[in-house]
Amino acid sequence: MSIPEILERKRDGAETTPQEMRALLSGVVTGAVPDYQIAAWLMAVVFRGMTPAETATFTKLMMESGDVLDLSDLPGVKVDKHSTGGVGDKISIPLAPLVASVGVTVPMISGRGLGHTGGTLDKLESIPGLRTKLTTGEFREVVESVGFAIAGASGALAPADQKLYALRDVTGTVPSIPLITGSILSKKFAAGVDALVLDVKSGSGAFLRGHEQSMELARTLVAVSRELGKRATALVTSMDHPLGVAVGNALEIEESIDVLRGRGPDDVVELVLALGTEMVVHAGVEKERDAARRLLTSALADGRAMAAFVRWVEAQGGDVAAVEDSARLPKAPVVETVAAPADAYLAGWDTREIGFAANALGAGRNAVGDQVDPAVGFRFPVRVGTRVARRDAFAEIHARTRDDAREGARRLAAAVVWSGEAPAIRPLILDTVVSTDR
Amino acid sequence: MSIPEILERKRDGAETTPQEMRALLSGVVTGAVPDYQIAAWLMAVVFRGMTPAETATFTKLMMESGDVLDLSDLPGVKVDKHSTGGVGDKISIPLAPLVASVGVTVPMISGRGLGHTGGTLDKLESIPGLRTKLTTGEFREVVESVGFAIAGASGALAPADQKLYALRDVTGTVPSIPLITGSILSKKFAAGVDALVLDVKSGSGAFLRGHEQSMELARTLVAVSRELGKRATALVTSMDHPLGVAVGNALEIEESIDVLRGRGPDDVVELVLALGTEMVVHAGVEKERDAARRLLTSALADGRAMAAFVRWVEAQGGDVAAVEDSARLPKAPVVETVAAPADAYLAGWDTREIGFAANALGAGRNAVGDQVDPAVGFRFPVRVGTRVARRDAFAEIHARTRDDAREGARRLAAAVVWSGEAPAIRPLILDTVVSTDR
Repeated sequence: MSIPEILERKRDGAETTPQEMRALLSGVVTGAVPDYQIAAWLMAVVFRGMTPAETATFTKLMMESGDVLDLSDLPGVKVDKHSTGGVGDKISIPLAPLVASVGVTVPMISGRGLGHTGGTLDKLESIPGLRTKLTTGEFREVVESVGFAIAGASGALAPADQKLYALRDVTGTVPSIPLITGSILSKKFAAGVDALVLDVKSGSGAFLRGHEQSMELARTLVAVSRELGKRATALVTSMDHPLGVAVGNALEIEESIDVLRGRGPDDVVELVLALGTEMVVHAGVEKERDAARRLLTSALADGRAMAAFVRWVEAQGGDVAAVEDSARLPKAPVVETVAAPADAYLAGWDTREIGFAANALGAGRNAVGDQVDPAVGFRFPVRVGTRVARRDAFAEIHARTRDDAREGARRLAAAVVWSGEAPAIRPLILDTVVSTDR
Repeated sequence: MSIPEILERKRDGAETTPQEMRALLSGVVTGAVPDYQIAAWLMAVVFRGMTPAETATFTKLMMESGDVLDLSDLPGVKVDKHSTGGVGDKISIPLAPLVASVGVTVPMISGRGLGHTGGTLDKLESIPGLRTKLTTGEFREVVESVGFAIAGASGALAPADQKLYALRDVTGTVPSIPLITGSILSKKFAAGVDALVLDVKSGSGAFLRGHEQSMELARTLVAVSRELGKRATALVTSMDHPLGVAVGNALEIEESIDVLRGRGPDDVVELVLALGTEMVVHAGVEKERDAARRLLTSALADGRAMAAFVRWVEAQGGDVAAVEDSARLPKAPVVETVAAPADAYLAGWDTREIGFAANALGAGRNAVGDQVDPAVGFRFPVRVGTRVARRDAFAEIHARTRDDAREGARRLAAAVVWSGEAPAIRPLILDTVVSTDR
């Protein structure tokens, strides 16, 4: 079986067989299959898709392409959460300590900003001293002592995915449901989790355009997880506008701490509770969703969640003082507000553009290897659907320079939608896909 | 404009603009665009196709990616012929001397065997001493003195095509009408011809499966030629069974000489005359097809065509004695016949399989750089549609060893179709596509 024949078969709509997939992916890791053949196969997959069985095989072989951590000696069901990426999506940061504080074990593997979206690791690194690069041994120790850990994937986890991910980014082959599924699940399952809660974004700030696409991704993620013997739930959630009020690294840490102190923005708290409920149920800490949610609500209210966060910051080398007094987090030298041009309802955002505008301020990368500025970003005191008066501030820009702030203001003004009528707003949680028999 | 954006636009069904095409193809030649991005673009083109304007731009930029020969100082209209490739397709070898002998100037650029098909250069090199690699100066000199020359393309002609051609072969991106069109026409027009006659194959031995595909390729080739200011005619011809009676390098030279001596197999003679007629008309040697055909028929009958061939063999360094007495051409040590298993009509062939079986004997390459054996191949004394008696020989195998011959016999027996009824046979020339206004 030659590689060109494998490409031709996929091009003509046939399944890539397990044997062919193995030849392809082992060649990806060893370098025996050149990048141009892999790129051609990826593009053929974008057009032809994969069957459910094929997607499961793809995911499994990617997972097995490197180390597969065995966390079975750690207590309880290991549960992680993954988001397909959004703007202002800091959910992991309050979520992990919250669910850990009620007894769920969370070995969380996180990523960096990509395109218009921020990354949990970039945000966490605005806490002075905090280390997100841990050895496998350190990672296990932190999980064991604190109940959760958050770190980047080591190069040894799912190396086939790391290679394909880099190629997809530069060959126009990102938007493919089977490829996205394999990429997400292979990394997570190689990290040794038993169950996974997925936050699949839908709307103007999501990677996939179109709700039906997001639904299909959610269904595929859950079905393939089940095929691989893992429990999974997917929530399909609105990314029509930024999540919470802050976009930017330290600004989102501050907001995360607000959530852990029981005073976070409604939408962030709601999503943390909804995803947390699924994690608690998967872990078997509570059987019923209502009880799980009550448990989490009380852990936010009584300080258990915040205490777990503080213990964790300390365990990964971070400055506890900076999270206990957020005035010690990095601050931008220039803070300016943007005023509404008229009396009107704030009707919506081009959320993707907000993400790119934040990158332009320095909150994200324009090229691999760029340094991220922890202090810069936006705050949105006015929620979508609210009526504001002319000259009221509807956004706050945290910038390195006045020029940056001016450019940020220009981009926000172009990305906002005003309306004379109260806009229709989709609910935050649009749909839930649960594995049927677990 | 970034390369990933160009790929995404093509993936999503947009035209690649002339500016984007230029960025892509100049990057192909300089190496600035990596192979994996080119491969992804090629696969996207396989799925999305190209508009007629896009195909013309693609072809023109490929043609201009290297040297463009100026043959305007040579007399008359320069006409070449191209075949999309078949089994037993030796047409160029008698065709070029025939039309040159009646005054058409033919600067012919030919290729090597590819996949299941043989190559004109491989066949010609079974004439001892004959050189198919000429400098541009030598090529012009031979055209000027003999009226035609046949040689391989120099590396300086359409380098973008040479690169894409090599990539397509290993990335499953061969069967795309715009890519095939650009590849064929860029090389031919870079070689300085004014007009082109195209033989587009249809049937079991063709690269494109399906008659409608072949028709579309024929129409595209003619339309793009016209867009680039060149005259072109395409014949769509049957490759349901091998052309002529011989498949194999020296065996096909022998058959070509039979044609030039006026005693070739009917189908080869018919196709030579049909393609030659178009070339004579394009060259303006005759205005009417009937007159052109009569002229060619007489040149075969009175020895002018054979005399031109002999002059040409001499001009390119070949052994004239070997073409005047074909007993001096390379001969295989083992010649065996294959007998019909029953009284029946020879109803058809898996022509592609015959090509691969000839390769296995040594007539073609299994990998780039393989040596070709000039002597081996098949002869088919029985034409499709003929009734044979049990034990009659229907094929002859020319092999290096008895084992090879046995394996060849086994493959031919599996590739032949017998029938109790006289089979329906498509005509050799299925369709003609002529540029409308020239």
